[in-house]
Amino acid sequence: MANQYVSMDNIRFTMFDVHKIERLFELARFSEMDKNAVNMLLDSVKDFSDKELYPVFREMDEKPAYWKDGKIWVHPAIATVMHHAGEMGLIGASFDYEDGGMQFPLSVMSGADFILAAANNNLTGYPGLTSGAADLLVTFANQEIKDTYVPKMISGEWGGTMCLTEPQAGSSLSDITSSASPQEDGSFLIKGQKIFISGGDHEYCDNFVHLVLARIDGAPEGTRGISLFVVPKHRLKEDGSLEHNDVATAADFQKMGQKGYCTTHLAFGDKDDCRGWLVGEANKGLKQMFQMMNGARIAVGRDATGVASAAYYSSLQYAMERPQGRKLTSAGKKDPNQDQTLIINHPDVRRMLFLQKAIVEGAFSLIMEASVYKDLEDTAQGEEKAMYNMLLEILTPIVKTFPAEKGKEAVDNGLQILGGYGFTSDFVLQQYYRDVRIMAIYEGTTGIQSLDLLGRKITMENGKALKLLAKEVMATIEEASTFDDLKPYAEVLGKKLSQNQQVLNFLVPFAMKGDYERFLADATIFMEFFSIIVIGWQWLKMATIAKQALVTGNHSYTTDFLEGKLHTMKFYYKYEMPKTDGLSQIIMDPEVLTVIGDKELIA
Amino acid sequence: MANQYVSMDNIRFTMFDVHKIERLFELARFSEMDKNAVNMLLDSVKDFSDKELYPVFREMDEKPAYWKDGKIWVHPAIATVMHHAGEMGLIGASFDYEDGGMQFPLSVMSGADFILAAANNNLTGYPGLTSGAADLLVTFANQEIKDTYVPKMISGEWGGTMCLTEPQAGSSLSDITSSASPQEDGSFLIKGQKIFISGGDHEYCDNFVHLVLARIDGAPEGTRGISLFVVPKHRLKEDGSLEHNDVATAADFQKMGQKGYCTTHLAFGDKDDCRGWLVGEANKGLKQMFQMMNGARIAVGRDATGVASAAYYSSLQYAMERPQGRKLTSAGKKDPNQDQTLIINHPDVRRMLFLQKAIVEGAFSLIMEASVYKDLEDTAQGEEKAMYNMLLEILTPIVKTFPAEKGKEAVDNGLQILGGYGFTSDFVLQQYYRDVRIMAIYEGTTGIQSLDLLGRKITMENGKALKLLAKEVMATIEEASTFDDLKPYAEVLGKKLSQNQQVLNFLVPFAMKGDYERFLADATIFMEFFSIIVIGWQWLKMATIAKQALVTGNHSYTTDFLEGKLHTMKFYYKYEMPKTDGLSQIIMDPEVLTVIGDKELIA
Repeated sequence: MANQYVSMDNIRFTMFDVHKIERLFELARFSEMDKNAVNMLLDSVKDFSDKELYPVFREMDEKPAYWKDGKIWVHPAIATVMHHAGEMGLIGASFDYEDGGMQFPLSVMSGADFILAAANNNLTGYPGLTSGAADLLVTFANQEIKDTYVPKMISGEWGGTMCLTEPQAGSSLSDITSSASPQEDGSFLIKGQKIFISGGDHEYCDNFVHLVLARIDGAPEGTRGISLFVVPKHRLKEDGSLEHNDVATAADFQKMGQKGYCTTHLAFGDKDDCRGWLVGEANKGLKQMFQMMNGARIAVGRDATGVASAAYYSSLQYAMERPQGRKLTSAGKKDPNQDQTLIINHPDVRRMLFLQKAIVEGAFSLIMEASVYKDLEDTAQGEEKAMYNMLLEILTPIVKTFPAEKGKEAVDNGLQILGGYGFTSDFVLQQYYRDVRIMAIYEGTTGIQSLDLLGRKITMENGKALKLLAKEVMATIEEASTFDDLKPYAEVLGKKLSQNQQVLNFLVPFAMKGDYERFLADATIFMEFFSIIVIGWQWLKMATIAKQALVTGNHSYTTDFLEGKLHTMKFYYKYEMPKTDGLSQIIMDPEVLTVIGDKELIA
Repeated sequence: MANQYVSMDNIRFTMFDVHKIERLFELARFSEMDKNAVNMLLDSVKDFSDKELYPVFREMDEKPAYWKDGKIWVHPAIATVMHHAGEMGLIGASFDYEDGGMQFPLSVMSGADFILAAANNNLTGYPGLTSGAADLLVTFANQEIKDTYVPKMISGEWGGTMCLTEPQAGSSLSDITSSASPQEDGSFLIKGQKIFISGGDHEYCDNFVHLVLARIDGAPEGTRGISLFVVPKHRLKEDGSLEHNDVATAADFQKMGQKGYCTTHLAFGDKDDCRGWLVGEANKGLKQMFQMMNGARIAVGRDATGVASAAYYSSLQYAMERPQGRKLTSAGKKDPNQDQTLIINHPDVRRMLFLQKAIVEGAFSLIMEASVYKDLEDTAQGEEKAMYNMLLEILTPIVKTFPAEKGKEAVDNGLQILGGYGFTSDFVLQQYYRDVRIMAIYEGTTGIQSLDLLGRKITMENGKALKLLAKEVMATIEEASTFDDLKPYAEVLGKKLSQNQQVLNFLVPFAMKGDYERFLADATIFMEFFSIIVIGWQWLKMATIAKQALVTGNHSYTTDFLEGKLHTMKFYYKYEMPKTDGLSQIIMDPEVLTVIGDKELIA
């Protein structure tokens, strides 16, 4: 188990047994895929991660990316990962054949990318964002732009980024001021500052393809005046050579974690010579970008889960090797003549381990659920397509936020298991602790995700998405209830669904009255509340499949593995599910304490 | 408010108004103290912190302490703080006059030390541990040892440490193997390795006085065979000069946070020439050390609260200066033609600010409560002394753990308010985030504190400490109930007390049956549960005093300050108190999932 960062058994169990991704391979789009190919892909990604990603993880932290002389200097492993990801076809794997892709389902890629993230979350963003940027071009750009950029991006030669944030407008994209002035040749002169641009520059790609949100001169105020541009670092000359496109790298933000993943400040058009080309429709930039954002949000959830997974196995290894203390005797004392016990035998340590396992595997299962919805949405038509879209929409903020928020808690518990050692640089836990912290900020903070969940997703089309989701949960409850020993947990989940309805019956009238501030004031608490139930659903689903396998004598997994699933489900229902009772009280408390009032009350 | 890290008003309100420390000055021991002197002390400590501690805080993180050539190299500010703390008399302030002290109450020192910790938690340990070590000598050592070491320690010339942890025995002190062999001259030859020794060596003190736990040859196994020794780095020769005492500095642990506070690995007696002298009675070392440990645990709680306080004001300043986003209109939309609002006006940001305030001020009030109990214990006699001792004993694990655990949450929320900036080294929040993480590990981890609370303190003398504490809480409930608008909160607190009784009625029978593993399996959850109630008590107490001041028109504080106290109490009762309902369910769940079972279930 040395240096384990994921459980391949768990990945396979979640993909094939719980979420049954083989059913996707019956669809025309994915018909060239089969279980064997997926297993080979997962194995080769694991092998690559073992050899190239995991070994440099700590070094990337110790030698952070930095800015010098107008350039960003990064770890050479980035060359390896971009090259190899291109070679393995991972960057464009989910694209259509005609766009150079392999039409891999997202659910397959989510499994593969999860392994990469667990091995080294400082590296995955480089090919990951490149893939997302290329995906945007494939979807919205004209053929000329596609031909110019996409092949070089999916081969890993050119990097891709998304440039949203500006210094004066963090989460508030309506306040973007970067400008785009139309030129006679159909291009635009781009001018503006973009910050927090992940993977925005380094020496290991020949060019960078920035997807930039900016306003065309005279565009409307707010989000309705934002357009999307492709702005390369170097533009292509007629003869095919590259010339500088007036994109300057102004700085690299130094950070608490993910130090190997550069976070750049880019200045576009300081010399009035930065050209961009419109992608898709004018003034529809934000909507288009959001197609990528949804993918990016799932990716953040997956990365957060990956970090938590690696931290979990690291703390588990320590707990299984470290002798310390003794079991209590029936007099409540310790007998110093006994040998020390391994710390995994202390109930509090076991609790911290099971908590991590419950978070990691629960989150991974939810990611897989959302990935399957995405694949079904992509392949379905009409009403069915709309249904999967709704399910994906309501889950996305949770897929992003649960792993980010509870991932912090998981890693925190992992670190705690090591005691003082966990705080030292001698062990890796402290790096996971620092790295995972960004996940609740990336691609829309937890506050933003929570507003999205309650203010948009729960209420859209009169709560249709929620009704669809409830139906899915009910199906799991029904299936679990066929086993007598799962029935009590199925009943708990049913009650929590009703509790959610009660909470919404309290909240929604505020929105109906136009009191949106009040409606959304505790959106973050609602996110916490609702996520507990959603992950409870995933755990019941996993437990049901494990139970089926035990009953039918399915030998794909060991009995310990399957019993461990049941045990962890019980753990989740004992230690996490009851928390909804406190949280629902908070949300339904009539007292309003955060909406209005003097700032003087706080200071 | 630039660079604010504490509220002096809040410190004074908590000390003088809520906990009425002036009543202590009527006691003989503290009769030379008065309110004016305390205020002068607080002001001078604040002034010193502003000028010397706070300005070097970030630099100490950027240039960590390190080991080179057998020595530890630290920031020169340590010279300043040791010198100044000695000069101001802070190191020995609480000692008897005859021991060179000023007989300051702990409650006064807790206020002063809180300011220091908030200004720079990387510095406070140096004088703090020196004070604790000197205190142990003053209490247990013979006159010769006291005369040799204490004056140099309280002047700040020599540093003091406590040496408990050994590599093979972290929290399990019964497994300490450092040895002490009696010599003819009455000294002992000391041999052993000690790790995680805070402030264990540096160039700015002439000598280090280590208080070392070790076993005298032939001593019993376990904790009953541990003795306490004073082991200087340099021993005093007859002529008064210093000679090396074979204490080698083997390493400095590099850490995630508190990088300016060195964490050393000391090797005693590698050349068989390390002398130590017994302090107090043989084989009573652990008990004696625990006198210092209790003080150290309160100090950790105070430091954690200090970090959280500094993080709170830093995020508050950002929230009051940063424009971003807009208030929602009654259509649930934002109007881009409006100016951006300051982020403090967003309900979710206000929630994160009030949460920090509730944690910081609640924790500080509890620290003050415990400090007053300590002062009363020190000055009372007979049954009264026993009573205050009991109250202090039951509160100590909470005083240590609530600020450590909820301090993490507070700082996490502070960082989140800054969004992406919070993760960057451009802002200080990420340093507080890293620094505060150690507090749940120092001086007994949260798991250890929770075992202490439930396994020892709650049950001791048939629950006498708890009964005494409940009486204190009832007194607060009664006083609050004289105000109609506080009555509902007083009733909530009363119900929570009953809920606690219910929880214990469920748990204690396990202990009575000798099933201690089961009794203590969820001790950490009980800690979380019980702490919420205890801090709820502190908030009701603060609110009552604020209400009294508002009603009587006391003008020592602004109306905003007092209304802010009431508002934050309400916030705590809305957002934190309901959580006990989920937690009590967890504890009273009959299912046992962490006590026994294969380790295979986890992996």
